[in-house]
Amino acid sequence: MLDGLFKPRSVAIIGASKNPFSIGHIVIKNLAEYGFQGPIFPINPKGGNIRSFRCYKSVLDVPEEIDLVNISIKASLLPMVIKECGEKGVKFLIVHSAGFKEVGDEGIKREREMVELANSYGMRVYGPNSQGIQNSDPAVSVYANFTFVPMNPGNVSIVAQGGGMGEMLKLHLYNVGLGHRMYASYGNECDLSMPEILEYYGQDEGSKVIMMQTESFKDPKAFLEVASKITPHKPILAIKSGRTHEGSVAVSSHTGTLVDQAAMATAMYRKAGVVEFTDTHQMVKAAIAFSTQEPPKGNRIGMITNTGGPGIMAVDEAIENGLTLAKWSAKGLERLKETQYAEASLGNPVDVVATAGPDHYFHAMDTLLKERGTDMVLVFFVTAPFVDLDAIAAKIKEACSASEKPVVVVIETRELWYGLIDNLRKGGIPVYEFAEDGSRALASMATYAGLRDRKKEAPPRLTVKKAGAAKIVKKYAGKGEYIPQVDAFAVLQAYGIPVPKVAAINTKKDIAPAAKKVGFPCVLKVDSADVIHKSDEGGVVLDIATAKALTAAFDKMSKKFARRKPTYVLMEQKPAGEEIIVGATASPGLGSLVMFGLGGIFVEVMKDVMVAVAPLSRPEAREMMEGIKGYPVLAGVRGGGVDLKAVEDLLLRVSKLAADFPEIAEMDLNPIFAYPKGKKPSAVDVRIKVS
Amino acid sequence: MLDGLFKPRSVAIIGASKNPFSIGHIVIKNLAEYGFQGPIFPINPKGGNIRSFRCYKSVLDVPEEIDLVNISIKASLLPMVIKECGEKGVKFLIVHSAGFKEVGDEGIKREREMVELANSYGMRVYGPNSQGIQNSDPAVSVYANFTFVPMNPGNVSIVAQGGGMGEMLKLHLYNVGLGHRMYASYGNECDLSMPEILEYYGQDEGSKVIMMQTESFKDPKAFLEVASKITPHKPILAIKSGRTHEGSVAVSSHTGTLVDQAAMATAMYRKAGVVEFTDTHQMVKAAIAFSTQEPPKGNRIGMITNTGGPGIMAVDEAIENGLTLAKWSAKGLERLKETQYAEASLGNPVDVVATAGPDHYFHAMDTLLKERGTDMVLVFFVTAPFVDLDAIAAKIKEACSASEKPVVVVIETRELWYGLIDNLRKGGIPVYEFAEDGSRALASMATYAGLRDRKKEAPPRLTVKKAGAAKIVKKYAGKGEYIPQVDAFAVLQAYGIPVPKVAAINTKKDIAPAAKKVGFPCVLKVDSADVIHKSDEGGVVLDIATAKALTAAFDKMSKKFARRKPTYVLMEQKPAGEEIIVGATASPGLGSLVMFGLGGIFVEVMKDVMVAVAPLSRPEAREMMEGIKGYPVLAGVRGGGVDLKAVEDLLLRVSKLAADFPEIAEMDLNPIFAYPKGKKPSAVDVRIKVS
Repeated sequence: MLDGLFKPRSVAIIGASKNPFSIGHIVIKNLAEYGFQGPIFPINPKGGNIRSFRCYKSVLDVPEEIDLVNISIKASLLPMVIKECGEKGVKFLIVHSAGFKEVGDEGIKREREMVELANSYGMRVYGPNSQGIQNSDPAVSVYANFTFVPMNPGNVSIVAQGGGMGEMLKLHLYNVGLGHRMYASYGNECDLSMPEILEYYGQDEGSKVIMMQTESFKDPKAFLEVASKITPHKPILAIKSGRTHEGSVAVSSHTGTLVDQAAMATAMYRKAGVVEFTDTHQMVKAAIAFSTQEPPKGNRIGMITNTGGPGIMAVDEAIENGLTLAKWSAKGLERLKETQYAEASLGNPVDVVATAGPDHYFHAMDTLLKERGTDMVLVFFVTAPFVDLDAIAAKIKEACSASEKPVVVVIETRELWYGLIDNLRKGGIPVYEFAEDGSRALASMATYAGLRDRKKEAPPRLTVKKAGAAKIVKKYAGKGEYIPQVDAFAVLQAYGIPVPKVAAINTKKDIAPAAKKVGFPCVLKVDSADVIHKSDEGGVVLDIATAKALTAAFDKMSKKFARRKPTYVLMEQKPAGEEIIVGATASPGLGSLVMFGLGGIFVEVMKDVMVAVAPLSRPEAREMMEGIKGYPVLAGVRGGGVDLKAVEDLLLRVSKLAADFPEIAEMDLNPIFAYPKGKKPSAVDVRIKVS
Repeated sequence: MLDGLFKPRSVAIIGASKNPFSIGHIVIKNLAEYGFQGPIFPINPKGGNIRSFRCYKSVLDVPEEIDLVNISIKASLLPMVIKECGEKGVKFLIVHSAGFKEVGDEGIKREREMVELANSYGMRVYGPNSQGIQNSDPAVSVYANFTFVPMNPGNVSIVAQGGGMGEMLKLHLYNVGLGHRMYASYGNECDLSMPEILEYYGQDEGSKVIMMQTESFKDPKAFLEVASKITPHKPILAIKSGRTHEGSVAVSSHTGTLVDQAAMATAMYRKAGVVEFTDTHQMVKAAIAFSTQEPPKGNRIGMITNTGGPGIMAVDEAIENGLTLAKWSAKGLERLKETQYAEASLGNPVDVVATAGPDHYFHAMDTLLKERGTDMVLVFFVTAPFVDLDAIAAKIKEACSASEKPVVVVIETRELWYGLIDNLRKGGIPVYEFAEDGSRALASMATYAGLRDRKKEAPPRLTVKKAGAAKIVKKYAGKGEYIPQVDAFAVLQAYGIPVPKVAAINTKKDIAPAAKKVGFPCVLKVDSADVIHKSDEGGVVLDIATAKALTAAFDKMSKKFARRKPTYVLMEQKPAGEEIIVGATASPGLGSLVMFGLGGIFVEVMKDVMVAVAPLSRPEAREMMEGIKGYPVLAGVRGGGVDLKAVEDLLLRVSKLAADFPEIAEMDLNPIFAYPKGKKPSAVDVRIKVS
């Protein structure tokens, strides 16, 4: 439980200072200004006063219990004060100080020693190199943070790895009058971890929505588990900074973390039902809607506007973000006809025209909100000079409050009439400046609802020969090489993944038994780590139809590659099918990621792939298949198509194999031939590397 | 010349009214409030006073010349007042009144008659169903428009089809203290056209940037010509509303225009060097940068930040928008080391850290701006509580003013310190709230510069047999059918487009001569408008190697299709190559659009196509080829690839054919087989429909 951190009964500040530009001063000022509901104890060995607080020379001198300590003194001075905190029985240390992991080896050591020392007293360390925490709950009102955005109570909680990003998120909630609930910018995450904070937010009744920003995942598995438990009842909106290669390099120079985790983040978000964003402003705008509205029951949007152009922009943006335009029932249309001006346009958007007054808006909104075929409503309102603004605002609020369906309002007006915006916002209605923003915010809510309500299953029980695969994998452990073809195929086969018949050929006398096993037509391949581009080097002979041709092919090939002393593999030749690629990569701290795409060009050139966390459930496997742009090729364009169920089964088995053997660093089934319904696909080439 | 419209020496208002909510009143109020530099003449048959102006009963009673008249009376009353305006010698009529084209047939007739009447007096009509115009030039200061955004002088001119959209654009310029130059929201465009307005803006020295929004193009050719003349010296930023199918339906219900012009708009923008946007806010943000900064000379961005997280977001967004990260020279890096804190991170972004003061910012900016490898600079600044904000702002301005390179600043702060933002903006520096916005704005400038500076050529002179093609095309004019294969191939051949040898077969006796002409192996195809899916119905036989096989195939096919009385075509069988599709569609009012993509799935499923305006120049043809995602397939992934020059030549010839014959409603060369270098591609199937 993190109550001692987010609901401390008392806070001490080590590094308290009279210097108004120091962290130790600003934290005291923030705690005092936002009315912390417990005592504040500045600690300064020189004693004296800071603001209206008497300093103590050490935490040991404080006459009461201390839950939380904010520390901003030099990194090298920490061990001594941490010992004192431990003796005092402090629960949580927020370390603002820098000079740890982010500065290299020495800092890493210092960080580890700090955690060991604190933990030995039962204390948890938050940070270091961190901004701090906030809890706007009036019963606590703790602003143990050195930043400047005012803390107003709200229901959006924020957890951010980067201080500047976290501050940005609460700043823009503050700007629209929303405030926030809890806040944590956790810096180096040396001990107390992001998933623990997330879990705490998940359990906090005052947190209706969670916004998170990360640059790297220290414990992805824990994040995935925690997030998956939260999203069924509470939306999580997330940004992963560093989604481009260049961005991830910037992350590593900023945080000292080296792995590119962008694909992993997307896979985890999808699995956990987290709504992913790539733009900070759009995430904040979505949070504004989530904060006051309930997610829609479907994807059908209804729109009302008093000017055409922005309505069209809203339509374009809604469609591009996966919404569909609602259609009115005959009864609904009748009511629109009765209540709107003759020159109004009664399609979707309903254009009530610029002269529309309060009743026109009310009836249009009330009609759409009562339509069974409409799941959400966007209202656009340019403050035409012909109408009574306050009366229209009142009617918009009236219509909203009578419905559970989400409504967003877009207002085009100048500062003179900003009161109108405040009025609606105070009424719990999200207000935006651009039509596109309204569509996107509603689309985000629909995305969340879709993720939350999709079918969930455990990964299926599949009959596999784990021991058989384990025996082979173990043989190559620690070698970091691609394992020989015959063994690689055997691993797949142990997991019920359909492969061609194969046989190893080392010397000429292996040919006859191999041919007997494999049959004709067959394929002869060189199998050596030294021959990378087998086909280009003449290391693959296809269409071998007779024993004679096989012997000839072997002779030629063994002459060509003699120097490199390779082995060879003989394979059943499968008829060409639709090409598919399935891959798996070990993802340290998480397990394995599985990749799915169509053959060659679609993966290499079009980058049309889906990545997911192994092992997959049936719905997840299907989601991956349906998620690639090229899916119609599998489902069949103008007839055709492949046995989708059989591909799904293969994908499930590869994902189980990857999950069962995290020591498989890389695995590529490329290509897999998929065939029409009734025929199993076949993985005709495979590469497996064991770490 | 539109001086009488945008620089009127006097304005009369027909429909002038005491009712403060009427258009006729608001226009007078706006003209007066923003200090129109000429006389205002309210016209009202009842006489009397409106605000501080004496009404005239008719324009004929006005004792002075009238350049411009704003009309907001009922549509049916217009003819009489237009006559009077004509007799008075008025130059321009702004018609606010609705009830024209947008209400259907009667309105269309009324609109046409209005234009004829006005033109008969030498008057031009602006609108109807329009908002009006503005010119903030202090020498004129005309606000002949009924909206509410204040008119502050600026250098961005706006032309918008939709009133709500135009108002939105100037509203958000106003919100950042920029104002605008000229403004026109032109409604139905019955007479005076958007390209005329654009041309006028192009010639106006006070207009540095043009923002435009359209829903439909009435005269696309004129737009293309005008825009192409402007962009070499002045950026045009454009949004086409209705880019989705649903959006274009919304356009048609809003404006009465039916054609989906989204692909056409994109093609015209690219050809003319117009920067296209799909999001209103992003276009405004780009305009803010263009208004005060000069476009960069290249794509290399340098970044400075005092907090890591937003810097990473800026990097991600820059990369995704086509920029690259600048690298510092040894000398530059040395200067950074000398001038920045030890804990600063000196990569790109330069993280000057939160405690950085004015000199740190100055030296970082000055260093980057002087780097030869840096074309533009983004500065991020979170108002850390430790530093002197005003001093930093002064230093940022100082660094900017010493350089021609574009700079944008992103500031994260609360309202207390908004003075800092105003301060920078007054210094001519674009300021944004989110890091992503800064990257996108700079990327837009780089996009403009790239379009402006790319190689431009006239379409090449190609040797074609136009008369030969014309003879065939003429034969099918007005039939609206696909023309027979043999003729279709002959049209291509006349334009030097490589095709297989073909021969028509009508009866059995045609077989031998056809086979002689075409040779073996060959393909026999049924050729009938009634047989749509030839292959599926058994209407294509491939791999015919002998005369005997050909006769057998013909017998079988002629039995199968006997009832439908088709003709047949015999074709040389070409070896399979990389599949390409080239298409052309007549685009009324513009000419023809050409489409380019890879075969089948890439076009149908992946939608990976480029569309351009015919005829193409060589650089345009190459741009189309390189513009598809699948281009590496043509250029060769790991070797391979096709004869790009030969494909370019084919594309040029198809584009010329389409341009020469706008009566070709549709043309599809699908597939074209492209071959390795040295071998010409071959269009093995073609469909041409003549209107």
